[in-house]
Amino acid sequence: MNQTSPSALRIAIAGLGTVGAGVIRLLDTNRDLIAARAGRLIEVVAVSARDRTKDRGIDIAPFEWEDDMTALANRPDIDVVVELVGGSDGPALACSRAALAADKGLVTANKAMIAHHGIALAEQAETAKVPLKFEAAVAGGIPVVKGLREGTSANALTTIYGILNGTCNYILSEMEATGADFAETLAEAQRLGYAEADPTFDIEGIDAAHKLAILAAIGFGARIDFDAVHTTGIVQVRAADIAQADALGFVIRLIAQVDAETGADGQERLLQRVRPCLVAKDHPLAPVDGPTNAVVAEGNFSGRLLFQGAGAGDGPTASAVVADLIDIARGEVGAPFSMPVAQLAAMPSVEPGHRMERTYLRFTVKDRPGVLAEITAAMRDADVSIESLIQPARAHEGGEALVAMVTHEGPEGNIAKALKLLEGSASLTAAPLVLPILPN
Amino acid sequence: MNQTSPSALRIAIAGLGTVGAGVIRLLDTNRDLIAARAGRLIEVVAVSARDRTKDRGIDIAPFEWEDDMTALANRPDIDVVVELVGGSDGPALACSRAALAADKGLVTANKAMIAHHGIALAEQAETAKVPLKFEAAVAGGIPVVKGLREGTSANALTTIYGILNGTCNYILSEMEATGADFAETLAEAQRLGYAEADPTFDIEGIDAAHKLAILAAIGFGARIDFDAVHTTGIVQVRAADIAQADALGFVIRLIAQVDAETGADGQERLLQRVRPCLVAKDHPLAPVDGPTNAVVAEGNFSGRLLFQGAGAGDGPTASAVVADLIDIARGEVGAPFSMPVAQLAAMPSVEPGHRMERTYLRFTVKDRPGVLAEITAAMRDADVSIESLIQPARAHEGGEALVAMVTHEGPEGNIAKALKLLEGSASLTAAPLVLPILPN
Repeated sequence: MNQTSPSALRIAIAGLGTVGAGVIRLLDTNRDLIAARAGRLIEVVAVSARDRTKDRGIDIAPFEWEDDMTALANRPDIDVVVELVGGSDGPALACSRAALAADKGLVTANKAMIAHHGIALAEQAETAKVPLKFEAAVAGGIPVVKGLREGTSANALTTIYGILNGTCNYILSEMEATGADFAETLAEAQRLGYAEADPTFDIEGIDAAHKLAILAAIGFGARIDFDAVHTTGIVQVRAADIAQADALGFVIRLIAQVDAETGADGQERLLQRVRPCLVAKDHPLAPVDGPTNAVVAEGNFSGRLLFQGAGAGDGPTASAVVADLIDIARGEVGAPFSMPVAQLAAMPSVEPGHRMERTYLRFTVKDRPGVLAEITAAMRDADVSIESLIQPARAHEGGEALVAMVTHEGPEGNIAKALKLLEGSASLTAAPLVLPILPN
Repeated sequence: MNQTSPSALRIAIAGLGTVGAGVIRLLDTNRDLIAARAGRLIEVVAVSARDRTKDRGIDIAPFEWEDDMTALANRPDIDVVVELVGGSDGPALACSRAALAADKGLVTANKAMIAHHGIALAEQAETAKVPLKFEAAVAGGIPVVKGLREGTSANALTTIYGILNGTCNYILSEMEATGADFAETLAEAQRLGYAEADPTFDIEGIDAAHKLAILAAIGFGARIDFDAVHTTGIVQVRAADIAQADALGFVIRLIAQVDAETGADGQERLLQRVRPCLVAKDHPLAPVDGPTNAVVAEGNFSGRLLFQGAGAGDGPTASAVVADLIDIARGEVGAPFSMPVAQLAAMPSVEPGHRMERTYLRFTVKDRPGVLAEITAAMRDADVSIESLIQPARAHEGGEALVAMVTHEGPEGNIAKALKLLEGSASLTAAPLVLPILPN
């Protein structure tokens, strides 16, 4: 439509790990196609990373080099900074703040930074009237930020949930496939590069909680409230639990979920949780295995929508980063969290406990008479109704036995009451495992 | 960010069927939330339909009424026309052209019109510098037009395929669940409102072909070429085929697929097809049942992405229509087919025949000796390698028997050769059914 060729979108990349290198490779490989779709060239002008000489499999000689990322962000010859350093604070945050302060657009894949500082950064971007985009921060190559911001924008959502951590999903589906236990599978995942040397953020559910907090803000028009996410990781899940779940028709997945509830006062509240759940084999999330991610959003008009794809990796993450750059090149940029920051509600959080759930419970017990009676009595006294109970012969290990059960739907709080009654019991050899069953 | 409250986006709705009524209900139900996300009110000013007095379960008294849709499109007090009349030509096209000619934006759910006239309408919209949007034309409430236009924009796609017709998918998954034959299941679907009184467009695959042609244009930067879609419907699929497929580990789904191929001359070509396929039970599309739709896009960096949700219905379709209106209200509008019309390539189409496929074949034969030998000889002579062959006892009907087989991967064209050799054979009582097997 323009008679004159529009000028290129000039970008700087901070951080040249696998994703940074992926972005450079993608912009090069798909250069013409991206220019046609973006309406202009997207050109890397300058880069910065910790080590200039490291072999990354890409040629960085054509780009200006900056040792200092804040200096990179302040270069007058760039329009947008792409922050791919990682970490919620430190150089990533300094570079991002500097970019927005210098009236540059900011594209980031940094979920920890957005979960902790996203609202402040969005305010800064609004003031500067520059774009802030972070599609790659959630679910890798899946366009779920756009999906919620633009795809479901007409809907009041009731829930968003999904599989947001590829490391956990890889471990759980490998345990399922091989029958191996957690520690062994984690070690294998580390060897194959699916888990980091320090896997804490992944296996404790913190990474998924970062992503959930971001989706909750976009989907529900709320200020990000990372501290309100109730988070449980997958460390307690044993091979025996996966076998029991399988026998009962379920798989185990780490599910991140945010539900909206309207209180008696008419005020909307959010319940945000990350926890391993039993997922029925005919649920759309059950076949999601390996490092794949998937997100379900349920709207009052759209019904249930599912977005699925690669949750990590340099290619998919670069795909999301460059999609954001194309949006910016097209001038299709609005409020990062779907509405201006001033309109985002500081939504109160709900404490769990009152919702109705079916639950899987696994007790590690001494293999002696009377244990079952003790457990079932506690269930009865806490008003928990047992749907099925299995004491698997093959789970015996030394003098220890496993007792697994599935409850009928009932208030979550009753489960906590039953466990309280069993606290300190000499029959239990370890803390019981409680896994909710995701409704279909 | 604006100090003064921005003015409302004023719309006119042409067509008040279930979707039109759904849009009005949605704009009313989610009014505040939509205004917050859109940054301004979206206000219905005027409506038009064939019958003013029909009971639609909504109150149209607050809106201006126009008997004539072209007059509606020309009203000076509206910004955008929402065309929900349907039909590729006639009043829908007249109203749409009039809207763009009067410099109004156009939002439509009309796949037939976009498949046939989308490029001409996009040119008109470009000239007038007004938005043209049609998220609701493909896959109901699933934001797949946005998904391809914005989500996968950084990628060269290799293929897009999916389940795009809810009626066929309902019929096939019902046949699967009940064992009933096609005619019976279609009648039941009509009774339940899942199929129209004249189901031709759905069951012959034409509706899916309309949608596929639109997705192909967006995903591959091509001018829409509806006539190039090779289309086969589901009428030939029998209960026995579904039972055979099940025994072999497959379900049958109507798959719409576009593949890009680069010829020896370096020129990219498209192969667009709609046809019933065998889908392995562990493929992400296998669990997609009932009126659900799903689309897979495979990009050179994103890898495989899946979008899934309700493919039709007033709520989901209204959700997509209003998402487009919110994009327009936000000013986030660009080229409807991802790049300006002048840059869309008139991509040549590929004739099928040379691709490698595994294939399911079902022959209806006279129940007499020598028939199997005749069929397998034809396969051998056409260089088709048989992986497994079943002559199910229960498929006998009178003097007729069914022979089903699955081939090893081989050139599609060889199957056609084998069938040519069998043409006119006295052993066959009907034309054989050929169903490709979707690769996993």
